[in-house]
Amino acid sequence: MNDLKSSMADAADAVERALDRLLQLGGDPEDRVIEAMRYAVLGGGKRIRPFMVLSSSAMFGVDRASALRAAAAVEMVHCYSLVHDDLPAMDNDELRRGKPTCHKKFDEATAILAGDALLTRAFEVLADPETHQDARVRADLVLALAEACGERGMVGGQVLDLMAETTDLNMPEITRMQRMKTGMLISVACEMGAILGHASENARHTLHAYAHDLGLAFQIADDLLDVEGSIEKTGKKTGKDQAAGKATFVSLLGVERARGQAKMLSDQAVQHLEIFGEKGDLLKQLAHFVVERDA
Amino acid sequence: MNDLKSSMADAADAVERALDRLLQLGGDPEDRVIEAMRYAVLGGGKRIRPFMVLSSSAMFGVDRASALRAAAAVEMVHCYSLVHDDLPAMDNDELRRGKPTCHKKFDEATAILAGDALLTRAFEVLADPETHQDARVRADLVLALAEACGERGMVGGQVLDLMAETTDLNMPEITRMQRMKTGMLISVACEMGAILGHASENARHTLHAYAHDLGLAFQIADDLLDVEGSIEKTGKKTGKDQAAGKATFVSLLGVERARGQAKMLSDQAVQHLEIFGEKGDLLKQLAHFVVERDA
Repeated sequence: MNDLKSSMADAADAVERALDRLLQLGGDPEDRVIEAMRYAVLGGGKRIRPFMVLSSSAMFGVDRASALRAAAAVEMVHCYSLVHDDLPAMDNDELRRGKPTCHKKFDEATAILAGDALLTRAFEVLADPETHQDARVRADLVLALAEACGERGMVGGQVLDLMAETTDLNMPEITRMQRMKTGMLISVACEMGAILGHASENARHTLHAYAHDLGLAFQIADDLLDVEGSIEKTGKKTGKDQAAGKATFVSLLGVERARGQAKMLSDQAVQHLEIFGEKGDLLKQLAHFVVERDA
Repeated sequence: MNDLKSSMADAADAVERALDRLLQLGGDPEDRVIEAMRYAVLGGGKRIRPFMVLSSSAMFGVDRASALRAAAAVEMVHCYSLVHDDLPAMDNDELRRGKPTCHKKFDEATAILAGDALLTRAFEVLADPETHQDARVRADLVLALAEACGERGMVGGQVLDLMAETTDLNMPEITRMQRMKTGMLISVACEMGAILGHASENARHTLHAYAHDLGLAFQIADDLLDVEGSIEKTGKKTGKDQAAGKATFVSLLGVERARGQAKMLSDQAVQHLEIFGEKGDLLKQLAHFVVERDA
């Protein structure tokens, strides 16, 4: 796993710098919202989604600068979703990655607007000729990201998650909710390398299948951490779902079966990558990592 | 003005139908957010921005179906901004177009998510090959819209507007704030026809200049309506800025000078269009309309 850990650390550093460059203060009165955007995206997180963009890009020989811009865009969308999900009207969270949430650090209006601007900026970055010289690639990146994040994707998943506070979801419902809420963005992150690298439809579908299994494994691992993890390691309040009486993979399957399911899905994810040979090694290691992490 | 009024009514009908087609309920539990999206965009508004997209598109022989999709995307962004601006943490408005605002009709979480999904959907529509066969056009539409709506555009303008509640803005500051908050989206709406129609850079710049003047004229007219309009006609609470002690074009210039300024800007906007001859007639009439409207 040394390979993976150093690759992830390198990727996280590079993405941090890319995000920093993309979100520069301008010395204008509206800088407050840029400060909130920077607060939301800089200095935190494992950068798993950007790592997926960079790793899948490396498989198809994509220029590193292009891949980094796409990775930054995906991370902006991920962070915008966290900022909005943390709002008082939604999950009402005060702590994120061990720091006050954006609306706590700034204020609600600024947090809403910072989220809006991050989402907008993500599409701007992807559509910019600097990201790729082929306009078809740029339009495809925008389309893939938007399809993953709207009412039939991430936003729809958050709606379902909010509904889960008052209705008990069963396994197929939870699976669908998590697929939408977190899985689709993970899928698009893994597919971006194929889009950027003009890879075959088959390669893209394979990455999609990998991400589909990985995304669920990731979420089950998250649910396990919510039950078993500590606030010190995860940097956020744990035991939340349980306290809210919310059905999760763990509450429905129990700890042992959930752990087994995560392992099975992670193995299955790895299987998909066999057609890529050694080129798929990093993403294979990542599949194991997501179910073994402790934060 | 008969020409204009019937053209605007036709455009509004066509855009309404396009938005309705783009936002279909799916029979899924997350339909609630689609209902909120539909509530926010259907059945209301003068559809001035979509009319700008359609009119500028007609000038360059753009296929009507393409133009309608771009117009719908712009209207989605406009409506998302209204939904978020109306939230309790922002302007805290209860009435919009004579109906309860989105968070009043649904709830805050749903309103935030419906806005997020509308913004996302706008980019999805623009990036979709159905909007234009040329990927360069699609990427350019996305880029132009995103640049107009982020922290250096519409969102930045809303930040400045919120700050104006506690600091008195002077004329250059108000002009800049309004330019960002409402002007840049109006500009991109007018430029979209040029982008869709592969028009010259010069044509696009001319439309930009027209929209720049028109946007300010539009905003001054809005400020005048806030002072002089009635809730019956405008469908929203009037006298708000005055009550909040907020500086506006009218509070700084007085009613008469503000009216004169709006007229001057509208005439100036018309001047830019001379190079297009008769083809610019509808947009010329629009420039007069925006300063003469009573709602």
